Amino acid sequence: MIVLFTDFGVAGPYMGQMRAVLARAAPGVPVIDLFSNAPAFNAKASAYLLAAYCREFTPGTVFLCVVDPGVGGPRAAIALEADGRWYVAPDNGLLSVAARRAAVARWWRITWRPANLSASFHGRDLFAPVAARLALGQSLPGEPDDGRDKIGGDWPDELAEIIYIDHYGNAMTGFRAANLGPGARLTVGGTGLARAHTFSDVPEGAAFWYENANGLAEIAVNGASAEKALGLSIGENVGVA
Amino acid sequence: MIVLFTDFGVAGPYMGQMRAVLARAAPGVPVIDLFSNAPAFNAKASAYLLAAYCREFTPGTVFLCVVDPGVGGPRAAIALEADGRWYVAPDNGLLSVAARRAAVARWWRITWRPANLSASFHGRDLFAPVAARLALGQSLPGEPDDGRDKIGGDWPDELAEIIYIDHYGNAMTGFRAANLGPGARLTVGGTGLARAHTFSDVPEGAAFWYENANGLAEIAVNGASAEKALGLSIGENVGVA
Amino acid sequence: MIVLFTDFGVAGPYMGQMRAVLARAAPGVPVIDLFSNAPAFNAKASAYLLAAYCREFTPGTVFLCVVDPGVGGPRAAIALEADGRWYVAPDNGLLSVAARRAAVARWWRITWRPANLSASFHGRDLFAPVAARLALGQSLPGEPDDGRDKIGGDWPDELAEIIYIDHYGNAMTGFRAANLGPGARLTVGGTGLARAHTFSDVPEGAAFWYENANGLAEIAVNGASAEKALGLSIGENVGVA
Repeated sequence: MIVLFTDFGVAGPYMGQMRAVLARAAPGVPVIDLFSNAPAFNAKASAYLLAAYCREFTPGTVFLCVVDPGVGGPRAAIALEADGRWYVAPDNGLLSVAARRAAVARWWRITWRPANLSASFHGRDLFAPVAARLALGQSLPGEPDDGRDKIGGDWPDELAEIIYIDHYGNAMTGFRAANLGPGARLTVGGTGLARAHTFSDVPEGAAFWYENANGLAEIAVNGASAEKALGLSIGENVGVA
Repeated sequence: MIVLFTDFGVAGPYMGQMRAVLARAAPGVPVIDLFSNAPAFNAKASAYLLAAYCREFTPGTVFLCVVDPGVGGPRAAIALEADGRWYVAPDNGLLSVAARRAAVARWWRITWRPANLSASFHGRDLFAPVAARLALGQSLPGEPDDGRDKIGGDWPDELAEIIYIDHYGNAMTGFRAANLGPGARLTVGGTGLARAHTFSDVPEGAAFWYENANGLAEIAVNGASAEKALGLSIGENVGVA
Repeated sequence: MIVLFTDFGVAGPYMGQMRAVLARAAPGVPVIDLFSNAPAFNAKASAYLLAAYCREFTPGTVFLCVVDPGVGGPRAAIALEADGRWYVAPDNGLLSVAARRAAVARWWRITWRPANLSASFHGRDLFAPVAARLALGQSLPGEPDDGRDKIGGDWPDELAEIIYIDHYGNAMTGFRAANLGPGARLTVGGTGLARAHTFSDVPEGAAFWYENANGLAEIAVNGASAEKALGLSIGENVGVA
């Protein structure tokens, strides 16, 4: 299985162009859109999101990760093998949190380049062909990398920010709920929020935080949009009290 | 074929996570997104939408329906076999209109629970595995239910509301056009609308209603957005004159 | 492979309904969403977009193209075979630019009609079944057409307008970059823009234009949305200086 983690948007051409490459190069391999609206231009928030959502996928899954504001510049193309899952991505920190949380992590540098490499769409031209090779069980076209000096090595274990806002207006934070106390309160934009188990445990219209289905502390309002009710946006600081 | 009817949004993680479960549990079974933006938190409007759009699918189709504001609370998980199609859903009225309009309808209660059931994402953890079993022709992991006292039993045959607004700004109502007279006028927000056959039968910029391709009375403007032109929103009352 | 080029929106029912027809009629044929948000009601801008994005697909690909504001009216249904790729579409100019730029182009009129043809959804009822037939290698259910008097025959080679704005807020124009001088400046809404190779060649927040990964001149801002920064919209005039 190939899992797509991008900030491309699902309606535009980029997802389809990348899927067309995969369909030709790895026919019959299932391709799943996990996120097509990862935080745009924001490899740091995206790294915490990826690390929370990759873990339910089985070993052998290939993650094709493209949040790539530096495309066309000098940033390298890398791959990571972590707990049996493969990841290909630009070298901008996007894989750093998934790597740190893995029991076994091995880094690679992708040295192969296609004959025609556009300046702005390495997802289609470079990363998708490499992901297809890995999904077919072929070797990575690159060299091992010791992983030292990788971007993101100094990022915190938990990111005290809003990292994603979903279709309902629920706001995921970079905190893993298991690392917060059962009585912990979160604060965002001056509002303090108590923990609940799930939506139906609080009155309609009440704001709270809870452990979402992937272990992240998530800010929500029962029956409404926390984004609108609390005026939230990605990157906003979240405090713990 | 498994058909997805949800309010998850297509760009976020929920659709992909559910699709990944289906790809592993029922490999090779086609999965179609029918609606990924059913009215959020609104099982009633969603029920009329589902009932209008399920009928073009062949017997044997499995509908995986998740509009589930009560997730994690006491609401039951149910299944319905209606005119040869299967549906799995939370017990909140979402299937009630499809059941009522079927010649043959049999209800079930889903009693199986997975080892790891999250508090907030039963689409992934509970409903998708059950849908995969049904799509493979396996038996439903539950018990027959007499269907009495199901939520939605007292809802009207036609819902006098806007139940969906599409990408173009066309507004679907809960009325089936075949149950309105040929000269019927609809009123919404003080505006009266005459019936037309299709868009090109009225001048550019004119508002009208017509029978959409799934039999619903739909409010539209030729070449523009009825949502913006008339200031419409889901849940708004629609009158018949 | 069947490639979808529509203005349907990906979240609503139309894409799924069309995909369900294709899954039944051409099982196992890969289906790719290229654009599901082509400029709504705008066959002209869409024609230049399609012509730029069709070329990376291999011969034998079938493009199912539905930007169809005249649906239900007298407009014909047509097909085009151009450089080995097939296209089906309403006869409103949508295929005219792809045809003009092909070395070999043959037009057809689709004469087949399904038993049940809705007034407003020919994508599902007419064009999808025809695309499925072509993808299976079956003959086109129609007649050759000499292509004279096709809509769009008098449209310019390059369209001096914004034809698409992507998920990041980048604005594609109807100019092919190869036909603009290396020192050409574009002007939009009174702002002059110099050419750059790619995003990372300009300072964060700077506006520029560049040749996108499909050869179009595209207006962008490094690390931000050109749409918002410059107040752009589809159809806006773009000048060359």
